[in-house]
Amino acid sequence: MAPKVVTKIKSTARGVHDKILKRQKPTMSIPVRNLSNVTYSPRKGYFDLKGSKKTRTLTYNTVKTFAQTLRMMALSKSIVETDDMATKREVYYVSKNWDEARFDEQPESDTVMDDVEAMFEVNREQLGFVPDEKGGDVAGALKVIDHERTTGKEIVVDCTRFGSGAYSVPVSVEELDFETSARFILAIETGGMFQRLNNHNYWQKANCILVSMAGVPTRSCRRFIRRLSEKKDLPVYVFVDGDPYGIGNIYRTLKVGSGNAAHINEYFCVPHARFLGVTPQDIIDYDLPTHPLKKVDIKRAEDMLRNDPFFQHYKQWQKAIQQMLKMGVRVEQQALAKHGLNCVIDKYLPEKIANSDKFLP
Amino acid sequence: MAPKVVTKIKSTARGVHDKILKRQKPTMSIPVRNLSNVTYSPRKGYFDLKGSKKTRTLTYNTVKTFAQTLRMMALSKSIVETDDMATKREVYYVSKNWDEARFDEQPESDTVMDDVEAMFEVNREQLGFVPDEKGGDVAGALKVIDHERTTGKEIVVDCTRFGSGAYSVPVSVEELDFETSARFILAIETGGMFQRLNNHNYWQKANCILVSMAGVPTRSCRRFIRRLSEKKDLPVYVFVDGDPYGIGNIYRTLKVGSGNAAHINEYFCVPHARFLGVTPQDIIDYDLPTHPLKKVDIKRAEDMLRNDPFFQHYKQWQKAIQQMLKMGVRVEQQALAKHGLNCVIDKYLPEKIANSDKFLP
Repeated sequence: MAPKVVTKIKSTARGVHDKILKRQKPTMSIPVRNLSNVTYSPRKGYFDLKGSKKTRTLTYNTVKTFAQTLRMMALSKSIVETDDMATKREVYYVSKNWDEARFDEQPESDTVMDDVEAMFEVNREQLGFVPDEKGGDVAGALKVIDHERTTGKEIVVDCTRFGSGAYSVPVSVEELDFETSARFILAIETGGMFQRLNNHNYWQKANCILVSMAGVPTRSCRRFIRRLSEKKDLPVYVFVDGDPYGIGNIYRTLKVGSGNAAHINEYFCVPHARFLGVTPQDIIDYDLPTHPLKKVDIKRAEDMLRNDPFFQHYKQWQKAIQQMLKMGVRVEQQALAKHGLNCVIDKYLPEKIANSDKFLP
Repeated sequence: MAPKVVTKIKSTARGVHDKILKRQKPTMSIPVRNLSNVTYSPRKGYFDLKGSKKTRTLTYNTVKTFAQTLRMMALSKSIVETDDMATKREVYYVSKNWDEARFDEQPESDTVMDDVEAMFEVNREQLGFVPDEKGGDVAGALKVIDHERTTGKEIVVDCTRFGSGAYSVPVSVEELDFETSARFILAIETGGMFQRLNNHNYWQKANCILVSMAGVPTRSCRRFIRRLSEKKDLPVYVFVDGDPYGIGNIYRTLKVGSGNAAHINEYFCVPHARFLGVTPQDIIDYDLPTHPLKKVDIKRAEDMLRNDPFFQHYKQWQKAIQQMLKMGVRVEQQALAKHGLNCVIDKYLPEKIANSDKFLP
């Protein structure tokens, strides 16, 4: 991975250098990133850019941004070559030593970083730029193969051996490898539910890997699930609250990505993820306590039906969302506790997973 | 631990039962929890209750709350006896099967849980009630001794063996034990800084344990640091942003607790924690880039000087906060990146730790 990015950076930099030597105006070409500029097809599986590009030419007006873009590329090259990393915030501070090319505010450096990311059609983790927020927690039938940065020595992390604790996914997962005999990955919304399933060694009974997303999954968490599931050909089942947020934000973002980050969805989505529950139908089938939909829930659900290319693609989802709106209620994964704290382990999950072909798409 | 709580629950329940058999009105006595009702003394090291109690007598008006309190105690007893756990949200849902004693909204069940916690003078984790939010991330010279809930078998988690990942602290840490030869614990504000120190095996060079707090530390994270540092007699150095939030919220909460949870500060504070940095003086000593204090920063700093018993106790802190207000700027831990991404490892931390006696209290 690393050398490929370095090669790309060098080649672009050489292009700029050559043009300057020829006394021509150097240019860099960057895809336009825009909310309305995405398409969804189940074949691709993620929100994709429609394709237009903007060209940044070196002129009197663009000289600062142009210089900053080159500086950013140079920083990335040096980070990747030394197997180091930098957060967005650190990059902003590093620029304080770039004299006239320094950034005054972090949003400026973030924008240039996004440009570089889009220009090389990689995710910024591949450039050595890592998020400040960590990935999810993991427990179960999985060995993660990592390496020591200082010595390069291989490290095997056995995720069955953490007791009530868990493996905390690092901010960058690009170089991790995996060994597993698990049957599926269970991605869970809340830390509390993850802890319950982990404490009771559910992963052992079901032969699976548990991942705690703690709300809308971070980039690292989504990338971890994507890489693991793809490399090991594992189905991904998503277990979240049965409300517009759990379905429309958490699940949708994990599966196909989000609108405002279209140029990276390709790396961060999990196209083969399937929705285990909690579904509106589960409320009836499992006699679950509910809460009335709030105004914001109704608005979100209606938005999903009206504007979201993903839900518009699937009749089954439209039916489920309409059922939720008609019932006027939402349900949480903890609601299963009404039937005993471990009903989720003894009854709900086994019954659902036995019929995984019926999961919502 | 567990049997002690069960004994307390049984004894209180028996008191209620006996009174009823004698046809007297049963009572339960609960400490008053109140913001203005705390004191600070460095000897105790945490915000402490001044001591008044309220008595809940079974009457026509209190019958529902009284019944709910007893139900909550019974649930706790059964959870502790089966080595299980329940989140606050799950407890609320379990109550849906308590007929007339069920809770309509979670704030009601949370209040009764707080009452039970205060009544037995334990933290709710000891009652088997766990937070939904996880603790911090840990890496370094530490072995955590846990046990499998299903078999009771001991599990040893080696925190040197996570590569770029980390050990994710479970929601309840009451039963963990520790082995370590580390010299200190370094508690870090941001996930990004933690990742840098972890990737570069800083814990090996400095022989320490790294803990990522990710902002104001959760209960689990504070309790983990407290138990580990106390059991192994380790100093705790806190490395956060040099701003009123880092000092007044993150550090202060970790060290002495918070005002609105006075009955549990005893368990969740880390009285011997010391402030490594970033200090206002570091801005000068290390030539760090800063940001102007915002209105909210100034207000918070002035509040700290005027109303916070902790900062009022320490002249050194008053001086440092006044210096910050006078300079009119705040500084982030990432600002050290101006002098190179690893300046923090090669220069800042070693220099500071060599003079740990000069840390702010």
